[in-house]
Amino acid sequence: MNKNILLLGAGRSTACLIQYLLNESEKENWHITLVEQNTEFAASKTNGHKNVTILSLDIVDDHQRKELISKSDIVISMLPVRFHLLVIEDCILLKKNMVTASYISPEIEAKNKSAKEAGVTIMMEIGVDPGIDHMSAMKIIDEIREDGGEMLLFESFTGGLVAPECDDNPWNYKFTWNPRNVVLAGQGSAAKFIQEGKYKYIPYHRLFRRTEFIDIEGFGKFEGYANRDSLNYRSVYGLDDIPTIYRGTLRKPGFSRSWDLFVKLGATDDSYIMEGSKDMTHREFINSFLAYDTHNSVELKLRHYFNIPQDDPILEKFEWLDIFATIPIGITEDKTPAQILQIILEKKWTLKETDKDMIVMWHKMGWKTAEGETKMLTSSMVVKGEDRTYTSMAKTVGLPVAIATKMILNGTINEPGIQRPISKKIYEPILEELKSFGISFVEKEMTPEFYSN
Amino acid sequence: MNKNILLLGAGRSTACLIQYLLNESEKENWHITLVEQNTEFAASKTNGHKNVTILSLDIVDDHQRKELISKSDIVISMLPVRFHLLVIEDCILLKKNMVTASYISPEIEAKNKSAKEAGVTIMMEIGVDPGIDHMSAMKIIDEIREDGGEMLLFESFTGGLVAPECDDNPWNYKFTWNPRNVVLAGQGSAAKFIQEGKYKYIPYHRLFRRTEFIDIEGFGKFEGYANRDSLNYRSVYGLDDIPTIYRGTLRKPGFSRSWDLFVKLGATDDSYIMEGSKDMTHREFINSFLAYDTHNSVELKLRHYFNIPQDDPILEKFEWLDIFATIPIGITEDKTPAQILQIILEKKWTLKETDKDMIVMWHKMGWKTAEGETKMLTSSMVVKGEDRTYTSMAKTVGLPVAIATKMILNGTINEPGIQRPISKKIYEPILEELKSFGISFVEKEMTPEFYSN
Repeated sequence: MNKNILLLGAGRSTACLIQYLLNESEKENWHITLVEQNTEFAASKTNGHKNVTILSLDIVDDHQRKELISKSDIVISMLPVRFHLLVIEDCILLKKNMVTASYISPEIEAKNKSAKEAGVTIMMEIGVDPGIDHMSAMKIIDEIREDGGEMLLFESFTGGLVAPECDDNPWNYKFTWNPRNVVLAGQGSAAKFIQEGKYKYIPYHRLFRRTEFIDIEGFGKFEGYANRDSLNYRSVYGLDDIPTIYRGTLRKPGFSRSWDLFVKLGATDDSYIMEGSKDMTHREFINSFLAYDTHNSVELKLRHYFNIPQDDPILEKFEWLDIFATIPIGITEDKTPAQILQIILEKKWTLKETDKDMIVMWHKMGWKTAEGETKMLTSSMVVKGEDRTYTSMAKTVGLPVAIATKMILNGTINEPGIQRPISKKIYEPILEELKSFGISFVEKEMTPEFYSN
Repeated sequence: MNKNILLLGAGRSTACLIQYLLNESEKENWHITLVEQNTEFAASKTNGHKNVTILSLDIVDDHQRKELISKSDIVISMLPVRFHLLVIEDCILLKKNMVTASYISPEIEAKNKSAKEAGVTIMMEIGVDPGIDHMSAMKIIDEIREDGGEMLLFESFTGGLVAPECDDNPWNYKFTWNPRNVVLAGQGSAAKFIQEGKYKYIPYHRLFRRTEFIDIEGFGKFEGYANRDSLNYRSVYGLDDIPTIYRGTLRKPGFSRSWDLFVKLGATDDSYIMEGSKDMTHREFINSFLAYDTHNSVELKLRHYFNIPQDDPILEKFEWLDIFATIPIGITEDKTPAQILQIILEKKWTLKETDKDMIVMWHKMGWKTAEGETKMLTSSMVVKGEDRTYTSMAKTVGLPVAIATKMILNGTINEPGIQRPISKKIYEPILEELKSFGISFVEKEMTPEFYSN
């Protein structure tokens, strides 16, 4: 029997998802209805495939949306985050299963009971981060527990970077995902984690100075800064009593120390509109965060403010970004510092036509075996994109979503409620199928090194 | 004819206000209705005076509140900020004048038109800061303009401190006003000002490192950090084109550099509840902001984190505050860092029975005369409290409120609308009467020193 898949949104990171759905559609008897405001863009991703219908729809039109959902067997939402609750409420009402890569918000979590009662599976957090991180971590954690082990330490880092062969700037970085999220990363509240049973809190303006180095065989050294939310993951992974849990974001070494200057200047602040900014040059923007002084250049004031020696390579990075240049920002109305910084960075950090992105994920697990021995292992994944469309982000976000959709349609996943991919029945087949797309982890045992050693 | 004054609230800073109203009540034929939930406390401030009635009232009870307001000739609101809009709406509806020391919020500003139409005077920002700062600044600005001068520079600093004779701790500081506001000072958005026509923005985590020194004859050296709102004062004072405007808060030298460590640690953050904090000691609270390390003490980690030499006097300040002590914070539920820091500080920074507070205000004005000469002057006020009840805060907040009330009742102030004390007709008699209470400014011309010199 024919199955109808309703895919909402054909934006960034959906290229591999669409490709997978179309490839499988013959064998699985699927018809895909793709809803996307930009129908031309959607058409460019589907190449006139016979099993797809492209529609343009105002997603907030209750009547049209409900009608489409009622006609489908499953809904995939790749819409901006703010629309998910709307779609989930419809799916529960109309008893349709649903899949999305986005985070479970407290508002969505509150729908768990009604989703369960309706017998509907709402599979969320099934992209890369969140998604592949959950699955790959739970696989190891479950193995350790099955052997009677007790988890002592869990560290996990993920980063979206530019592939080394396309890395041609002194920051070793380009925007490979939503630039606004990169500029605002770490803001809002302190980073929280727990280390050897001690709670640790890092405020935003110190976050990029408390990094860790991580070595990944074949890919060299990375650095990681703490995510805000490590403590939440204890209950998600059933690690409530674990003495050390730390999640973070990966960059190439040196990035954080340089980025920290933007943080310390106040240039990442999104809380106020800068009066006068529409007429500023890059140089004036930077100067507005430095003290008034008629004798010293902006460069010298920056160096003095942060005690940077004149031969420090960090200066080259800032010059390369043109932040001292007397070129207009190019805006027609005053904006926040974060919005302006993003505009300046996008002039230099945008992927070129031929550039490839790269996703790096790394876990470290420490545990005590049933025999009382301490053990430690690392597990790492590196995935490169093929081009600017079939990016590593599109692969690692889109393929788990696509595979989960297939599994729900086939009845392999049938647990009702608001779900994450943390049970073996779900992550095992998905991780297995991801291997055929070159998405796999390398596990390595290491000599245990605990902090209190 | 008898006049009825409705005074809402008898909390902090109302002692001198109540005393003034009672003293004048004979001659002026006033009856004061004092509404205060804590009637015993109110009674202790009025000593059974025959011209006062004390009432307890639920201020959010519309019926009771409106009835009381309708029976009064003028309303003084010393309530917490959140109640002012409610009272102002009633006053406009019932055509009653009103006085309060609080800031004009955008919501209140929006009532200007209806207050004007009702012919009602709502006199606000008539305490010390805001209040005496407006009046003393506008006096000088108006004089300069009357002489055909053009304003080039306006700097203004105010601080609530402990009187030098009661200053017995290495911070040279005690809480003389709302401790929560002191802990949160500077948070929310960058400090904004303009210097020689250049916009300047200081983020919170640098605010206490970009201070200025100020010398006040007879009282020595102070330091000032920037307030968040300097740019707003251009339109309030009619200084839209002034090239330099800067407002700030005064402390004794050395305070800001030490306070900065709490800011940098993240200990002033009010945005999250610290998990585990209810069981922490002072020492564990500080340690939660420092990296995990089994080899070094909390003291040593703090020194290394901020590059503090072992003989730096800053360390004595922190030891004096007992922040490294293994004594319990003394809370029964988890709280935010800012709430916990406030509790720790209140153990040491509370005024003793015999301590006196002190308010310091200082302006610097620079201008070009009609003849093209540049001039500069400073104007300063220092007011000490008498004890813990008749504080300098109670004097400088309460007396302008009281005098303005008298002037409105006498018809000297009769301009309708949402008002600030910035016109000569208002500030001149108030500043004059304040002199008789020892609240006066010392003006001194100085050699002009502009930044671009």
